[in-house]
Formats: sequence, structure tokens, C-alpha cells
Amino acid sequence: VSVFGFEERELASLVRSVRPERPGADAPDGSLADEFAALVWTSIAEPGDRVCGALTRALGPGLALRLLIERVEPERIAAEVEAREATGEPRPALVAALRDALDRWQPRISARLAVRAIEQAARFRVGAILPQDPDWPRGLDDLGESAPAALWFRGDVERFRWFARSVAVVGARASTGYGDHVAAELTAGLGDRGVAIVSGGAYGIDGVAHRTALASDARTVAILAGGLDRFYPSGHDALLTRVAADGLVIAEVPCGTSPTRWRFLQRNRVLAAATIATIVVEAGARSGSLNTAGHAAQLGRRLGAVPGPVTSAASAGCHRLLREFDADCITSVDDALELAGLDVTEPGSAVDPAPRTDPPDVVRVLDALSPRQPMDAMSVAAAAGMSLGDVLAVLGPLELEGRARESERGWLRSTTVAT
Amino acid sequence: VSVFGFEERELASLVRSVRPERPGADAPDGSLADEFAALVWTSIAEPGDRVCGALTRALGPGLALRLLIERVEPERIAAEVEAREATGEPRPALVAALRDALDRWQPRISARLAVRAIEQAARFRVGAILPQDPDWPRGLDDLGESAPAALWFRGDVERFRWFARSVAVVGARASTGYGDHVAAELTAGLGDRGVAIVSGGAYGIDGVAHRTALASDARTVAILAGGLDRFYPSGHDALLTRVAADGLVIAEVPCGTSPTRWRFLQRNRVLAAATIATIVVEAGARSGSLNTAGHAAQLGRRLGAVPGPVTSAASAGCHRLLREFDADCITSVDDALELAGLDVTEPGSAVDPAPRTDPPDVVRVLDALSPRQPMDAMSVAAAAGMSLGDVLAVLGPLELEGRARESERGWLRSTTVAT
Repeated sequence: VSVFGFEERELASLVRSVRPERPGADAPDGSLADEFAALVWTSIAEPGDRVCGALTRALGPGLALRLLIERVEPERIAAEVEAREATGEPRPALVAALRDALDRWQPRISARLAVRAIEQAARFRVGAILPQDPDWPRGLDDLGESAPAALWFRGDVERFRWFARSVAVVGARASTGYGDHVAAELTAGLGDRGVAIVSGGAYGIDGVAHRTALASDARTVAILAGGLDRFYPSGHDALLTRVAADGLVIAEVPCGTSPTRWRFLQRNRVLAAATIATIVVEAGARSGSLNTAGHAAQLGRRLGAVPGPVTSAASAGCHRLLREFDADCITSVDDALELAGLDVTEPGSAVDPAPRTDPPDVVRVLDALSPRQPMDAMSVAAAAGMSLGDVLAVLGPLELEGRARESERGWLRSTTVAT
Repeated sequence: VSVFGFEERELASLVRSVRPERPGADAPDGSLADEFAALVWTSIAEPGDRVCGALTRALGPGLALRLLIERVEPERIAAEVEAREATGEPRPALVAALRDALDRWQPRISARLAVRAIEQAARFRVGAILPQDPDWPRGLDDLGESAPAALWFRGDVERFRWFARSVAVVGARASTGYGDHVAAELTAGLGDRGVAIVSGGAYGIDGVAHRTALASDARTVAILAGGLDRFYPSGHDALLTRVAADGLVIAEVPCGTSPTRWRFLQRNRVLAAATIATIVVEAGARSGSLNTAGHAAQLGRRLGAVPGPVTSAASAGCHRLLREFDADCITSVDDALELAGLDVTEPGSAVDPAPRTDPPDVVRVLDALSPRQPMDAMSVAAAAGMSLGDVLAVLGPLELEGRARESERGWLRSTTVAT
């Protein structure tokens, strides 16, 4: 076993520095190289690179990386892939895709780069979790070939289990007081019910979600677009440090990687895939939150949007989601729980399935009755356009319910009960 | 031809007093009795009475009324109906329904009542329109047996044609400033595009809709729950008088009939059926507007709801419609036009089908470029994780679009265009 010329002992030391719980020495030979290579792949390929996904899935990250280092011809790599029948792609397309990919990966295939990423991670107490780990968020599997090769994180690795009961709460950086208020209400309510609040660490709605979750001792996870050696935005450094201490901060890219627009868009796919449902609290008509929502919809995740005034630009994106993406209209914590298919612990607070109205005959009799002017039953019948028998059949129960009463001079509608 | 002992000349005079355009003398014999009887039926049966609908449809209003006046047994009436095979109901059910109906109609079968309703209508310049008239709103046919036998109205009968391009704009009496504002915007915008605004004449949203329509010279129609001799609510007497002058005020019940809760609920079915679509602007969780919306949904009419702050009780009903009745989210005049299937005259103002983003390669190159630090193409390729060829293929078009430029020392991102 040797990668980049590193011997087994060096590989084990590097891997162990970011994966303390699973000493490499105990792992089978192939596993150590695969674990190391998976981390290296996060430095080589941009997030969401489908050729990287196809290659590492078919050959394993270790062999895939070795073929790259050895500058093996695309045709031969494609033959290796097809020998394992792991991709259904026809060979010429695979060769062409590989050729393009090798071109773009080449400048980043470097032992120095790989070691630096791992050493920096160790220095910043950043760990790495791999798809084969028990706590890996299984929702990411739905991303198929664009699933991350590994995730870097700060926090306790066991907190990855929170994703099993998690909701992404995202929204505009330029949020309004209304949006902040609703984000806080939703976050606190979901948090109280043991739901983890996952967001992107940005200003605005994201920040309110993390902050409220921390303040109410709820579970919270931030998924960032850049490396975890430096939190972005820097104004949220203290907040994200607290999230790392009490929750989890995650990135797909290694330390030293700046957050770019592309990486934000790809980060959004991880947000959407790792969680059960995505709720957009406020979003402008072209907000990045719509991208997260689009990923959620594409992945078949439940999607919710909080409505707001149609006069507020900060709600325009949410209304678009309601109109065009068939998002659920989220107005309360119960709505959010229902969206995510999670138990509603207070069933009484749910709205009725339909407005409750009295049967037609009851409405007519109550309409006919006066609260002040007593009427005999025959007059009630004439006024209500009903037969005497039907009127009497209604007056009895109404009297029992205290909604009508019979005085000496005739029937009256009770005024204590609103009709 | 004789009804209630009135001879043909008397019937013709009564009918002509509320139907000036169609002199009864020119109508065939049966027609005159039918027209008179249809008006009488609005005094006998409460709105939405399905037995009345079944009977008058099968036998014609004239014969149906004559059998009532002659106190013919329910069995014989049922036999008459079935002889014409107009209803699919099994005979025992029809006989039972008729027996109940005769009981409730009996107190109201009176020549005095019938004449008073017509004389009052004539005095208040209230006209009557019948289902066989060319301007009758054809949407009401969808009500089947619960369709009105006739409609009373104040205004120009030709304005009934407005229903062919009409939207019901309804909402809470206890509206907020926000709801009033949106109702006015929608009404003015729809009115400008020749859409008639139909509402219920109540305080709150209804009033704003009528008032805005009048102010912007748009078409407006009020459909009321009580007789047109006295407008309800009385505080809207001046407003509804203006609606009658410039538009149309309609009721299903004859003059002298008070608006009851039952009649409000039935009025709502006429509102929903006569118009192309119903839009609820604001509504509390149990608002009567939800009843109108329910009718619209049941009739297969398009239903829209304006979202608002989830913190506003006045929008709770609208959010319920979005959640439970699959109402369209209405945020603009264009949304409302789209809902009603009417032409959007300003297509440019419609929102795009999806957020527009650059292709992945373009995003990556722009991410890699700096606005200040010139880079050679190879450095851009390394930073972007792309091949040199792909980077050059992107840089060319970006330069043409003015989004990147090549200085003597290398490539720069242009700062004039937002990325």
C-alpha cells in the first residue's frame, strides 16, 4: 500500500489525525488507502463532480486516485470501470468525460496539496466522515454520482445522527424583522420537539435559525461552502464557533478552500439532501435559497415556504415556491412538523379539516328566531321556510344545547352563544 | 292561462313591470305563466332548495306552481315528474322529498305574497332575469338543481354579460390595512384589463373591491343575501346605490326578504358559480369567505388566495386555502389573470419559470477570476479546477459580454457587471 509515495505508516498517521476513532492500523489494507484517497479527492474535484463520483464508486477512491497519479490513459481507466460494470454509460462517452475530467483535475493532483489539507484539518480540529461510516447522513446517498466523497466537520461525529430528524431552515441574508421573527418561532418550536435545525451559516435567516437553536438548547448544524479553517462570513465566526461546540459545522471542501459561488450552489444540494425537509422562511425573487429549494424538490424532499405580505420583496421567492414549486404553505410549527412527516405532539392545535357549520335546518331556525321577540313554533316555521315538524325537531336539541329557549310567550334565541 | 286566479292580462302587467324589455303579450301562452311563476318561486323556496330546482326543471315553473296551488298530492306530482323522466331519483325518495318540501313551502304559497314581491320590485326599480334570458350568467347552470329560479337586480340587464369576464374578489369584513391595500391593487389592475369585479357588498374587503372598481371606472357587481328594497349593511347604502347606478346589484331573494345566515351561505354559492374564479384577499380562520371558496372549489372554479404574514389572524383563512384547498397563491394582478385563464397583457411582467443561473463552467471561471489581480489562463484553469481549453472557451464569450477582460498582465473579472 502506497499512495503518492507515502508508506502505510505515514498514511495511517495522516488518516488517524482526522479520524481518531478508527485507527488505520486496524483497518484492512485496501481500506486505509481508500480512506486517505477519499480525503484527497475532496481537494482534487470540485463539489458535485459527477465523473469523480462515477470513478470513485466504480473503482473505489484508492484505485481511482492511483490511476490518476500514474497518469493512466483515459481509455484504460474506462476499461477498468466497465470491467466492473458499475456505470451504464457507453464507452466513448465515458472516455470523453474522463479526458475532460483528467484535464481539470491534473493541476490539483499533488502530494503537497493533499497533505496540507489533512494537516490543516488536524490543526483546526476538523474531522472527516466517509460514506461507509455508520453516522454518515444516508440522505446524501440520493445524490448518486454527485454525492460527496467525504465531509469535513467540526463537532462531535455522533451528532451526524441528528440528520435522521432534521429540517433545513434557510432564507434570505437580507431578511426582515418579520422573517427573523418567524424563523425564530419555527426554530424554537422544532427544536423543542427534538428536530435538528440545519442551515447555511449566512447572515439573515440562517443566522437567526442557528442563534435561536443555540439559545433554546436545540440541535443545530451549519453546512458551509468553504473550508472549516476559516468561517465565512467572518462576522459569524463567534456564532459558528458556538455551533461547532454545541452542534456541528460541516463542509464538503477541505481546509484552505474559499467559498465560491459554485461551491455555495453545491453546498445547497448537501443541505437539501442531508435533511428530511427544507423550509424557506424569506427569500427574494432570485435568492440562493431558491436553489436549495430546487435541489430539495429535485431530490423528492418535502419543500415548505413561509408566506408573507405580497408587498414584501423578501417574501417574493417564497411565493414563487408556493406558486411554481408546489411548496407547502408553512404558517406554524405544526405545519413544519407535518411537512417533515414528524409527529405533531399537540394534535389539538391542528386546524380542522373544514369550517364547521350547523346543518341547514339548524341555521334556518336560528336565523328565524329572535333574541328579543318570542315566536310560536308555527311562526318560526313560516319564517324559516320549514315544516312545523322539522322546526320542532330542531328546537328540542337547540334548547338542550342552550342555544334557544322557550319563554311563556314563545321561542327565543339565546344570546349567550354566538350564532 | 291563470295563476292564483290572475288572468292573462294581470299576469302580463305584473311580469312586464319587472321585465320591461320582453312584453309578456308577445310571449307564447305557457311562457307568461312560467315567467310569473319563476318569480313567485323565489318567494316560496329558500335559496338553494334542490326540490324546488328538480320540480321547476322537470315540469316548468308554471305547472310546478299550479300543482302546489291546487294542493295536488305528492304521489301525483312525483308521477308527473317521472312521466317526463327528468329526474333519476327513485320514486319513494322523490315522494318523501316532495312531502317535506310541500310542508315547508305551504306557509308561503300566497297570491298576496307573490304580488307584493313584484310590486315592491317595480317600486324600487328592481328587475328580474330568468335562466332562459340571453344574458343569464351561464356559470349558474353548473349549480344544477340548486340553481336560482330567477335573479332580481338593480342596474342595466345587459351588464349581466360582464360575468363572462369576471372574478369574485372577496374577504374578511375585519380586514387590515394590508388586505385593503392588496384588494385595491388587485381590483384596479383587473378592472383596467376589463375584468368585472364581483363581490358581496359587505364591509372590509368587499367594500374596498366595489369602491376601487367604481373609482377606476371598472365594472363591478354586488351580489347580496337580502332583498334589494333595502341594502345591507345599511352603512353601505350609498356605495351599493352607486354600484347599482354604474354596475349591477343582484339578489336571489325578492324584495322584503331579510339577509339571514342561511341566505349568506347560499349567496356565496351564486358568487362562486357566476364568476370565472374566486380570490380571497383576507379571511380569518372561520370567515364566511371560506364558504365562498369551498363553493368555488366544489364547482371546479379556479380558487386563489392572497398570502399575508403568518402572524396576522386576518390571513389565517387564506393560508388554510393554500394548504388545504390547493388554492393558487395570488401575489399580483398577473397571478390573478393567470388564475382566471384571462390574457396577461404584459407578458414581460410575468416571473421567469426558474431562477436563471450561468452554466457551471461560467460560474467556476468567474469565481476563479479576480477583479484586481490579473491571472494567466493556466492559473485560472488551476483555480477553477478546469482544463485550459475549457477555460479559454468560456473566457471568450465572457469578454464579449463585458464580464471579463484581458489586460496586458492577464485576465480580470469586470466589476461593472454583478456576478
